[in-house]
Amino acid sequence: MKKLEQLYEGKAKKVFKTDDENCYIVEYKDDATAGNGAKKGTILGKGVVNNRVTNHLMKMLEQNGIPTHLVEEINDRETIVKKVTIVPLEVIVRNVAAGSLAKRLGMEEGTVLKSTVLEYCYKDDDLGDPMVNEYHIAALGCATPDELKQIADYSFKINKLLGDYLKDAGIELIDFKLEFGRDVNGKIILADEISPDTCRFWDSKTHAHLDKDLFRRDLGGAEEAYKEVLSRLLGK
Amino acid sequence: MKKLEQLYEGKAKKVFKTDDENCYIVEYKDDATAGNGAKKGTILGKGVVNNRVTNHLMKMLEQNGIPTHLVEEINDRETIVKKVTIVPLEVIVRNVAAGSLAKRLGMEEGTVLKSTVLEYCYKDDDLGDPMVNEYHIAALGCATPDELKQIADYSFKINKLLGDYLKDAGIELIDFKLEFGRDVNGKIILADEISPDTCRFWDSKTHAHLDKDLFRRDLGGAEEAYKEVLSRLLGK
Repeated sequence: MKKLEQLYEGKAKKVFKTDDENCYIVEYKDDATAGNGAKKGTILGKGVVNNRVTNHLMKMLEQNGIPTHLVEEINDRETIVKKVTIVPLEVIVRNVAAGSLAKRLGMEEGTVLKSTVLEYCYKDDDLGDPMVNEYHIAALGCATPDELKQIADYSFKINKLLGDYLKDAGIELIDFKLEFGRDVNGKIILADEISPDTCRFWDSKTHAHLDKDLFRRDLGGAEEAYKEVLSRLLGK
Repeated sequence: MKKLEQLYEGKAKKVFKTDDENCYIVEYKDDATAGNGAKKGTILGKGVVNNRVTNHLMKMLEQNGIPTHLVEEINDRETIVKKVTIVPLEVIVRNVAAGSLAKRLGMEEGTVLKSTVLEYCYKDDDLGDPMVNEYHIAALGCATPDELKQIADYSFKINKLLGDYLKDAGIELIDFKLEFGRDVNGKIILADEISPDTCRFWDSKTHAHLDKDLFRRDLGGAEEAYKEVLSRLLGK
């Protein structure tokens, strides 16, 4: 497959057209941002980790009945994915209170939630990705009620599959963000990435961060933590 | 019924015990606040308007199948209500984009929403009444899924009943806030108030504010607008 012109450059990835009209190539960068782009930096090797971890986890999900955009990993930083129209929602799945939820609801970070919390944010950088609910989504026309039900069902299933899978690697899945798209047939499939950029991973024993909070909160050790996740999930 | 000691003083109302253990007396004040108490003032005669308008509208709703806490109006400012345990949620029903929704979603104030939007805020002054969804509500234990479904059903029905009723008085129902409680039998009933403090009322023709936005936004004319609402709904 031939990599053609760049379609889009995001905060952490570039997307390219290819000579197959149903496929894109995604390239993962080392650029790191936080606070909706307010903070900028680099986590050396992040692109490689995120590419490989995402593909590894998407393969596992695909084998367990979750349709994903993954086609094929080309190299350490690049992957062929199915062309989708992104549903403009960030779907956040939370098992343990952390980050913005802990702050907003006055809960101590680390508090296990009585039941899994799903949140939707409307993807709009200018508005700061505001939280929305099913009624806003209907009024905005982001997704049909059937699509939203499908997205919620997949998200809960992914939470169970990922949580169990990561537990075996000594990683606790605190919360994570998903994005879905419509494929060429209009079917909802998982898109974007699943990585230490988009998930809160805590070491099961020490509760040490193995994720972007090390960068967000200037805790240091982000590069090592990202590599640790790669190594725990895929071996050396 | 005898008015006994004060149980609670809120921003706009006082609540008193009575010699009937199943009833409280509510007293409406002229005090006005905005921005979660950041702005304070007085709207002369507001207490009378809100007491009388609330009771008038609750009677109409009760006649149309919505159970409410209303027992009996005692005088211009005081009403006997059923004792309830308040569900700690503000239920906001929106027909037209205004206020915080317009700001958060980048919509022009006055835009008619494609479908009615329901929002829930967790009643907690210290946290600034953060917006929550059904999953947060379950995790916080504010209401059971059955209670929340009942609350949503009542809210949509109230929206239809109120909207139609107000239209005949030349008032457009932009959005409003409801609170529900559990009565002594644990049944969900409508509580709190329905007034220019808790609703956005726009004149149907001129779109002039007939509500607390006049105070919130320092537009002037709040006293007259509150009296206008009273007069349109109950006559002189």
